[in-house]
Amino acid sequence: MRFSKMYAKTLKETPKDAEVISHQLMLRSGMIKKLASGVYTYLPLGYKALKKVEKITREEMDRAGSQELFMPVLQPAELWKETGRWDAMGPEMMRLKDRHDRDFILGPTHEEVITDIIRNDISSYKSLPLSLYQIQTKFRDERRPRFGLMRGREFLMKDAYSFHANDESLDEEFENMKAAYTRVFERCGLKFRSVEADSGAIGGSGSQEFHVLAESGEDEIIYCNTCGYAANLEKAESVVKEEIVETKEELAEVELKDTPNVAKIDDVCEYFGIPASKTVKAITYMDTLSLKVYMVLQRGDYEINEVKLKNLVDETDLVMLSDADLVAHNLIKGYMGPYNVELGDIILVADESVTKMINHTAGGNKVDTHYVNVNYGRDYTAHIVGDVRSVRAGEGCPRCNEGELESARGIEAGHVFKLGKKYSESMGATYLDENGKTNIMTMGCYGIGVSRTMAAAIEQNNDENGIIWPMSIAPYLVDVIPANIKDADQLGLAEKLYAELNDKNIDTVIDDRKERPGFKFKDADLIGFPIKLIVGRGAKDGLVEVKIRKTNEAFEVKAEEVISFIEELIAKG
Amino acid sequence: MRFSKMYAKTLKETPKDAEVISHQLMLRSGMIKKLASGVYTYLPLGYKALKKVEKITREEMDRAGSQELFMPVLQPAELWKETGRWDAMGPEMMRLKDRHDRDFILGPTHEEVITDIIRNDISSYKSLPLSLYQIQTKFRDERRPRFGLMRGREFLMKDAYSFHANDESLDEEFENMKAAYTRVFERCGLKFRSVEADSGAIGGSGSQEFHVLAESGEDEIIYCNTCGYAANLEKAESVVKEEIVETKEELAEVELKDTPNVAKIDDVCEYFGIPASKTVKAITYMDTLSLKVYMVLQRGDYEINEVKLKNLVDETDLVMLSDADLVAHNLIKGYMGPYNVELGDIILVADESVTKMINHTAGGNKVDTHYVNVNYGRDYTAHIVGDVRSVRAGEGCPRCNEGELESARGIEAGHVFKLGKKYSESMGATYLDENGKTNIMTMGCYGIGVSRTMAAAIEQNNDENGIIWPMSIAPYLVDVIPANIKDADQLGLAEKLYAELNDKNIDTVIDDRKERPGFKFKDADLIGFPIKLIVGRGAKDGLVEVKIRKTNEAFEVKAEEVISFIEELIAKG
Repeated sequence: MRFSKMYAKTLKETPKDAEVISHQLMLRSGMIKKLASGVYTYLPLGYKALKKVEKITREEMDRAGSQELFMPVLQPAELWKETGRWDAMGPEMMRLKDRHDRDFILGPTHEEVITDIIRNDISSYKSLPLSLYQIQTKFRDERRPRFGLMRGREFLMKDAYSFHANDESLDEEFENMKAAYTRVFERCGLKFRSVEADSGAIGGSGSQEFHVLAESGEDEIIYCNTCGYAANLEKAESVVKEEIVETKEELAEVELKDTPNVAKIDDVCEYFGIPASKTVKAITYMDTLSLKVYMVLQRGDYEINEVKLKNLVDETDLVMLSDADLVAHNLIKGYMGPYNVELGDIILVADESVTKMINHTAGGNKVDTHYVNVNYGRDYTAHIVGDVRSVRAGEGCPRCNEGELESARGIEAGHVFKLGKKYSESMGATYLDENGKTNIMTMGCYGIGVSRTMAAAIEQNNDENGIIWPMSIAPYLVDVIPANIKDADQLGLAEKLYAELNDKNIDTVIDDRKERPGFKFKDADLIGFPIKLIVGRGAKDGLVEVKIRKTNEAFEVKAEEVISFIEELIAKG
Repeated sequence: MRFSKMYAKTLKETPKDAEVISHQLMLRSGMIKKLASGVYTYLPLGYKALKKVEKITREEMDRAGSQELFMPVLQPAELWKETGRWDAMGPEMMRLKDRHDRDFILGPTHEEVITDIIRNDISSYKSLPLSLYQIQTKFRDERRPRFGLMRGREFLMKDAYSFHANDESLDEEFENMKAAYTRVFERCGLKFRSVEADSGAIGGSGSQEFHVLAESGEDEIIYCNTCGYAANLEKAESVVKEEIVETKEELAEVELKDTPNVAKIDDVCEYFGIPASKTVKAITYMDTLSLKVYMVLQRGDYEINEVKLKNLVDETDLVMLSDADLVAHNLIKGYMGPYNVELGDIILVADESVTKMINHTAGGNKVDTHYVNVNYGRDYTAHIVGDVRSVRAGEGCPRCNEGELESARGIEAGHVFKLGKKYSESMGATYLDENGKTNIMTMGCYGIGVSRTMAAAIEQNNDENGIIWPMSIAPYLVDVIPANIKDADQLGLAEKLYAELNDKNIDTVIDDRKERPGFKFKDADLIGFPIKLIVGRGAKDGLVEVKIRKTNEAFEVKAEEVISFIEELIAKG
């Protein structure tokens, strides 16, 4: 591709509304263009990278024995009513009516459609197991689309679905898919971790996420520095090695203390001269569907994990109470506590840690007051007790009991999940077994965010000059730059090498624009070509320069050897 | 691929609601599955064929210098309001609102989006010409979706758009695209014709359709048996060599005749003993938007071409008057005519041929009556006179004036079109020329129905047993069939040849199912594998049979030579 003809409109300035680096760099390098909030066009350079991620994904899914199909974007409402998701899905699902006033949705996922196909086509155990996948555009009307391709409203997903006669077969496919996903992210040249994730009712190893590691990642993941244990923060457990609580302390009498303007945990600690581990904080939530209100108690130095909380109280959409809601419930912001409180309908929830504390401080339920020497059991009890604590780096590994947990930031790019019979049961996807008996199929589902993986690759690989594409997904691998386009030697040699690289099927650009070399280098670094092949003054002596984007290494190479030199660089990845 | 694992649910019976052969065969061979009216899933076999058409299209567009991008399905209403198409598009355009109540559409085409991109990114003549394409799902809410993939509501298109500084540049790209399209359809192994099509205001060679020839085609195309002239029926012109009208006949007096139960042209001819060329028929239309009513006069042996009529009267949505509408306008069905008629607001339109007739018959405007010896000019005149006649095979070529026109049926699979400044003007896509002056860009657009081409390939290539895929787009090229799977020699040789074909990257299936050979042959013919490689009793002597689906030829070949034999067959195409 000739740069002079290439659709690549690079920008010097960072667009204002781009918050994360991948979004900024993709806009600046002319890879994507916003059409509407959360809706982007992939311009030629961006689409080439996207297609490479797509191709790697397709090859590894094929290799894993999954068969590709292509399901529609438009899905009739009837199928979603069968599974109950027509009502359960909120405004994130995009809905429309056709000219005959029939309800349709734009597929955010395809469990209903694939299960409908399978229940019609498959009837015997002989056809199982079966794994099918597609690479298709998905739609999700995010409340606040942001971060460019990371959280858009229209995005590219690989979604796979497997059907089985029994759990052992599902377990096998689950492992098969984990291996395929590992190959996908490895081939994309990314640093990643697979972590245990929350799987609701199924539990065990039924849900694993693949996170591309990047400091800008939205998610925190926890992993053991000794064994292979890794989980996302919602799912992570730990062993707290060093309990600060002194179990031998005698229970003291509760006292109400005046604490003027001492509302935050830090202030309470300072005021009383105690560690946060001797305080209890109370946070109130309401579920927007059930409308139940919960006061949740946590040890002052621990955080509440809202996913664990949702699972514990069996709610789906918890939000913190607003100031107005607090007033309506006679609760005093900053001074709430479990002792001497008028709960009314409020359900009191305590993290396990709270029940083990001795003589803790708690809000006085009046402005500017706190109780000291409060004790769970003696002074109050909660309606529900359980683990709602966020794990922290430095705590002990719950798996090997030896290692220490570390923490990293990640971008969720893949997810493998044992669905079980949720959809096959409600939609009647059954098969006849060896004995002619009707059984319900067991299912798995497996997703890779193709466009998100592309963005995550940039989040992980960039510097102040631009993108640093991994070789395998770079739109072009080599940028041939004749330093002085008016010099016939330089231009001639550059054109010759460009032709040779094309003959080797290496995706190559020649920067034939009438611009200064510095200008060209800037564009090359912004777009992120892994290799620059600079044909400068050395051309007359048969010498060229190879510069590696990632390491910034530069090599002077003989022109006749440079093609094989580049081939080796590419082979090394 | 092993047939035992392959997702290929073939049906013996033809599904009831499938009217055309491609639809029937794709359902029966398990290539597609209906999800909703006009909305289909591509099952693995069908998707493999579709991807091959897609790949050929992509390669030829790349070769033609067009750059691939990928625009969203969701398009904001604002862009369509700029061009006026938000109002102009009827219920065929699918519309929806997002969670913030903003209007969006599901792209039926992308002129607005691409023009928006270009007006923002391109400002100089130096960046022109520019050609961009995408292969993307389109949405069109057909009033009556039918014919399977031929006229669906969600379908795959390749659409390209070009931008130019002047008409000469557009002309060049137009020819470049025509050549690319020719290569696409040639490589797909299809018999096709490119024909001139109606291009509204632009005229000339500004619009060409590519039709895949098939007797079941919806469109009639006209071509000269001598020169290269070809046009669709709407656009076709002709020279009528032998005028039946005897221009020397004297004008006679108009007479009203009783013609009981003589309402049709054939009956009129029989009743009066005259040829149809001496009669005039009158047909009434109303435009559903302007609500104007037209009475159109045509020579009895000619047909009215509704596209020519629309262009002549400048209307967009003409429909024939219903019986009730006729009554409301005091018109008598079967006995309408231009003489002694109370037209009121009705606009009278005459085909040119009518104005040259002498002493013609026409409806009497009363039940069971006709006038004879009516003459245009003397007895009546029309408000509008023009060519609204459908050309017929057998007439003379208007281009070379020597050949005779022939007719064929086709399926429109491609269209190249000079858009001119329609979108660039309304949306302000301008550039600065060499002199720094602002000019409006000129545009072209170019479409290929990718899914429709796949269906058209089947319409053109099938027999009573099933599909006959062209080599280049067959989901698999070879079906290796061990005749007796329990015979170790046969199975062993079949597996060996299957592995060798895979090593050669030839898409191959081995039918390892425990079924009788006849059963396997039926499936193979239905799915349409171009080559069957049958490993039967000859296996023990090192002989196998190769059967060609298209010609039904069978060859006995030595096992060690069969791979190269098959390679030669494939190379021949």
